[in-house]
Amino acid sequence: MKAQVLKTYDETLTGERWVAEETVPDPRIARSTDVIVRIGGAGVCRTDLHIIEGVWKPHMDPTGDRLLPLIMGHENAGWVEEVGKEVEGIRKGDPVIVHPKITGGTCLACRRGFDMHGPGKFPGLDCNGGYAEFLCTSERNIVALPRSLQPKEVAPYADAGLTAYRAAKKATRHLLPGETCVVIGAGGLGHIGIQCLKAMCAADVIVVDRSDGSLALAKKSGADHLVKADGNEVEAVLALTAGAGAEAVIDFVGEKGTTAKGLAMTRPMGSYYIVGYGEDVRVPTVDMVITEKNIIGNLVGTWAELTELMALADRGLVELATVEYPLSDANRALHDLNAGLVHGRAVLVP
Amino acid sequence: MKAQVLKTYDETLTGERWVAEETVPDPRIARSTDVIVRIGGAGVCRTDLHIIEGVWKPHMDPTGDRLLPLIMGHENAGWVEEVGKEVEGIRKGDPVIVHPKITGGTCLACRRGFDMHGPGKFPGLDCNGGYAEFLCTSERNIVALPRSLQPKEVAPYADAGLTAYRAAKKATRHLLPGETCVVIGAGGLGHIGIQCLKAMCAADVIVVDRSDGSLALAKKSGADHLVKADGNEVEAVLALTAGAGAEAVIDFVGEKGTTAKGLAMTRPMGSYYIVGYGEDVRVPTVDMVITEKNIIGNLVGTWAELTELMALADRGLVELATVEYPLSDANRALHDLNAGLVHGRAVLVP
Amino acid sequence: MKAQVLKTYDETLTGERWVAEETVPDPRIARSTDVIVRIGGAGVCRTDLHIIEGVWKPHMDPTGDRLLPLIMGHENAGWVEEVGKEVEGIRKGDPVIVHPKITGGTCLACRRGFDMHGPGKFPGLDCNGGYAEFLCTSERNIVALPRSLQPKEVAPYADAGLTAYRAAKKATRHLLPGETCVVIGAGGLGHIGIQCLKAMCAADVIVVDRSDGSLALAKKSGADHLVKADGNEVEAVLALTAGAGAEAVIDFVGEKGTTAKGLAMTRPMGSYYIVGYGEDVRVPTVDMVITEKNIIGNLVGTWAELTELMALADRGLVELATVEYPLSDANRALHDLNAGLVHGRAVLVP
Amino acid sequence: MKAQVLKTYDETLTGERWVAEETVPDPRIARSTDVIVRIGGAGVCRTDLHIIEGVWKPHMDPTGDRLLPLIMGHENAGWVEEVGKEVEGIRKGDPVIVHPKITGGTCLACRRGFDMHGPGKFPGLDCNGGYAEFLCTSERNIVALPRSLQPKEVAPYADAGLTAYRAAKKATRHLLPGETCVVIGAGGLGHIGIQCLKAMCAADVIVVDRSDGSLALAKKSGADHLVKADGNEVEAVLALTAGAGAEAVIDFVGEKGTTAKGLAMTRPMGSYYIVGYGEDVRVPTVDMVITEKNIIGNLVGTWAELTELMALADRGLVELATVEYPLSDANRALHDLNAGLVHGRAVLVP
Repeated sequence: MKAQVLKTYDETLTGERWVAEETVPDPRIARSTDVIVRIGGAGVCRTDLHIIEGVWKPHMDPTGDRLLPLIMGHENAGWVEEVGKEVEGIRKGDPVIVHPKITGGTCLACRRGFDMHGPGKFPGLDCNGGYAEFLCTSERNIVALPRSLQPKEVAPYADAGLTAYRAAKKATRHLLPGETCVVIGAGGLGHIGIQCLKAMCAADVIVVDRSDGSLALAKKSGADHLVKADGNEVEAVLALTAGAGAEAVIDFVGEKGTTAKGLAMTRPMGSYYIVGYGEDVRVPTVDMVITEKNIIGNLVGTWAELTELMALADRGLVELATVEYPLSDANRALHDLNAGLVHGRAVLVP
Repeated sequence: MKAQVLKTYDETLTGERWVAEETVPDPRIARSTDVIVRIGGAGVCRTDLHIIEGVWKPHMDPTGDRLLPLIMGHENAGWVEEVGKEVEGIRKGDPVIVHPKITGGTCLACRRGFDMHGPGKFPGLDCNGGYAEFLCTSERNIVALPRSLQPKEVAPYADAGLTAYRAAKKATRHLLPGETCVVIGAGGLGHIGIQCLKAMCAADVIVVDRSDGSLALAKKSGADHLVKADGNEVEAVLALTAGAGAEAVIDFVGEKGTTAKGLAMTRPMGSYYIVGYGEDVRVPTVDMVITEKNIIGNLVGTWAELTELMALADRGLVELATVEYPLSDANRALHDLNAGLVHGRAVLVP
Repeated sequence: MKAQVLKTYDETLTGERWVAEETVPDPRIARSTDVIVRIGGAGVCRTDLHIIEGVWKPHMDPTGDRLLPLIMGHENAGWVEEVGKEVEGIRKGDPVIVHPKITGGTCLACRRGFDMHGPGKFPGLDCNGGYAEFLCTSERNIVALPRSLQPKEVAPYADAGLTAYRAAKKATRHLLPGETCVVIGAGGLGHIGIQCLKAMCAADVIVVDRSDGSLALAKKSGADHLVKADGNEVEAVLALTAGAGAEAVIDFVGEKGTTAKGLAMTRPMGSYYIVGYGEDVRVPTVDMVITEKNIIGNLVGTWAELTELMALADRGLVELATVEYPLSDANRALHDLNAGLVHGRAVLVP
Repeated sequence: MKAQVLKTYDETLTGERWVAEETVPDPRIARSTDVIVRIGGAGVCRTDLHIIEGVWKPHMDPTGDRLLPLIMGHENAGWVEEVGKEVEGIRKGDPVIVHPKITGGTCLACRRGFDMHGPGKFPGLDCNGGYAEFLCTSERNIVALPRSLQPKEVAPYADAGLTAYRAAKKATRHLLPGETCVVIGAGGLGHIGIQCLKAMCAADVIVVDRSDGSLALAKKSGADHLVKADGNEVEAVLALTAGAGAEAVIDFVGEKGTTAKGLAMTRPMGSYYIVGYGEDVRVPTVDMVITEKNIIGNLVGTWAELTELMALADRGLVELATVEYPLSDANRALHDLNAGLVHGRAVLVP
């Protein structure tokens, strides 16, 4: 099959061609529960740029010689091409979206539903992913798509969307009418998070962002209040919440000072959710004690949560702005992303 | 002040005049935390007809000679007229809605927030209520109205709306996207419940009712699917839920067979919420065991929940159809209600 | 292998020999995730008597000719004998207890951790079970035993114990110090439930039973108060709870009037848990509304819950009284159980 | 009445006499819901030393001239002496423990049960407390003592114990058998927390402390494993938890590096509870994301929680080591505390 292959790191991201189109062997069924998916769309994610930079090398590839060449692509959707001999209920041609973490399903975390905390593989990060014609995954990763949804339209939900959904869902479990949720950052994840919040609870949603374009997207996504991050965003949020702050703050940025500001926007007994990352959270213990705030880490969601997110998408309650690039143009997609030229999420299509 | 007073029971509800306009002494501040409210609207509720019939006599008035004469009216809103000398933060003229149960606030149930389970009084049922110019209540019963809401428009939320809200809220705490909630009965409570569900979760809402008018109201309230209760409603709900039934069923009727049908519409691990009442629930223990269903009783909501409901109303997320009658026309309002001629909720206004 | 085989139903339970020892083919690995367990102990359960009577025939065997001959035995523990070629982390000789429900692991219920609600098989009920030398199950059913526990000592935890655990666990999630849990029935399940309650929360435990022997077992299991079920048990429980009733009532009987009594012992906002079954629950809807009680059905627990129960057993926090019978004496074990002669749980051993 | 009065700050804690015995006017009923308590015991707390040092001055007394003279003492128990004219159900002579925060009871936080987050007064910190013969509080602060408990034995539960209880209770709501809770610091709060954990869940409790004496107290309090904080305590905890860390870590120290170590002892999806304070928590956002850990702040408990804690004490499930000092020896008690000479909690008695 054709694939876009990363063969060397580019720590400065200054090269012209990061991935190279090659013809590689098709993936093959190895276990009786494997599933081969014909890719209909593969999301291009900022994490891919970090992989190219070598940011993940210490974690995934400490000796520097085992991971590359790598086919990236961890946000995949398409159609079932072939199934292992013990797979049931999944047939060739079924449109599907692929949960990104492959786990065995037998550890305690998996058995309680928290698959992403079990040991396993993450195609596109530590084994071959979806920048290709086919992908090998497992039956436990397959979520059937409703008829209303096309693979290329939904691929980015597999990781970016699912992460935003999980954080927003946690907040909606405690947010009540009359309460407030602040969303910091209305980009690729944030605009999904806003829509999930509006669909799943009645709290007021305040969106904080530095970019007018992102605030416009936030408005379209259902935000009740927009706050320009101009240095006075904490004061602006306090003014909108009678001086008390919000019951939930979801930080999709996690750097450049948003953590201190996010905590300052959180009211006593409220929860500050970390999704984006970069800087350290730093907070005096005495402040945590006096206010009883909670700081909540957030990873990608569960398989069940991916089905929930697809239910939202099926009903038009979340919508995703995508920009299509042919698989052969993977380098252009990656460069556009790096240059801030992608509005919405870039998706590679066959 | 003028009041509409119930002086004798009418077990057959065949009399012409059930309440009589009288001039009675104004209520007076007795405790330092009492609050006198000038009534702006008093909801007329089916419970009032039951009081007239004497249905509540065994509970409230077992010797038959202590309750009457009674000023009915347990759904009250208006403006603060006078406050006890230790009341803080409430001033004459404030527009307010009145939580219906007066409790001391010191028992364990109250201290955990479940005021309606503490011992106390229920004006309109066991002491004088709001079919009058003024009502005496306590500072703990006062919920300030947002500017957007007029007392006469919101009075029925104080009991009917608050009961619907509490049941719907319980369901939204577990309902996830892709799941279903069945609402049985789209009347005065049901149409509020539907709106609360749609505002507070992303589940699909199926409404079951015998009346086309109610189904039309359900549609307007946001129902996703309408099912005519023609004898095949269980099959219809199962057909809409892939044969499995709904994760939540809220029964606003509770009689004429809805309990068996409601439970049959509930899927394994699902919850059947009882709000309306009349018949017995009857279910084999073995069915409860095999399916792990839950049967959940529901009373009127807490004070905090009344503030939550007002937040929904303030944002236009719930709307209430009301029909105004002058206080002097209380008999007409009650007769219209008894005759099924009130579309929405009747409210007595000064 | 040798097995005790049920070949014909005995509706009156009057026969002398219900099962017959036969030599049958050893079970064989059919799927890559199958596991063969050499039986170290197989619990003998009242459900087995019901199977012999044909009670389950309408559900499991409607045409009456497909289920028999059947090897019963759904509470199994032993040692791994052989594993399918894709099984990981389980080796021949490992001591294990077997979760009773075999499910595929890919449906939404399974993926959320509620395996017992997924479609599947239940060895001993609808396919061959553990009254034999070997049992075929799946890797998803295997729970490794801590060193402190022997298979023949723990086999009845696989179903009876796990059911008691799940109900008790649900109650402990809301029971607080100063609150009360009533346990109705201190038999095979009840005495496990009592120990789980005492280990997992600080509520007072009142045990209600008709038998002095069972009350003595309850005392030994940690009960704080014993109430003889002599007709005045509701009054006795109310007297112990300041007239209010208990926050949780777990009914391990579910027949002969315990449901009405159990609900009467439940305080407002409390929960009545159904585990035992037989009669119908019948309750006026108005009582459910006024009291906001919950009625909670309970099935066998999840795989994760079986690991939790083994953790309790490993620490000596629950103990199980067992009586051993050789596999060849299965008929005697079943007759003793039917005659009420088994104190504790009967277990067949090789 | 006689009282021990703080009249000047001593920033270096080097003075000989911090408080002076004076005769001051008895407190008097000002509001209809006030309650005067005759002090039976007043806990002496490290916070009192901080008040003397002036640590709280910026918060409580920014202009430096309004707080002193102050009667300290925020952990109070005794007997009701006099009640306001609208107080019900509380009579002179009743033995009581006093919740430390006086709130109005009408704000949303109070109405949801979280009194300590409502605006109000904190006797002993911002108005006169219990280093005296009498204390003025409110009916909403009174918790009746069971007969088994004497005021002087329980006074420190009012704040120190209640804080430990609340944090431990939060952890027990999610801790399951087979899981682990680490307690950092087995001092005055920690040894209460350990007992609460053992009473309310079946998790294994590992206690980490630098002092052999504290570890001995931990052992007596029910700890399952003891770890000397010798620099390798993280490794020791990981070794006890199969390398994964604990599902809950409760940090009663919050300084000298315990926050980083506490987080390192917390397993993925686990919760790190902050009770003690001093240093900053500092953690990379990326670590919070990858592990989905939670950081939970903890304040003193609610009124309802104080009743729960008294239920534990009444049953002997928590015990408190106290050392009595006559009220006239308040200076000695404070100096002993400062010098580390108090084993258990110091209590001033009349």
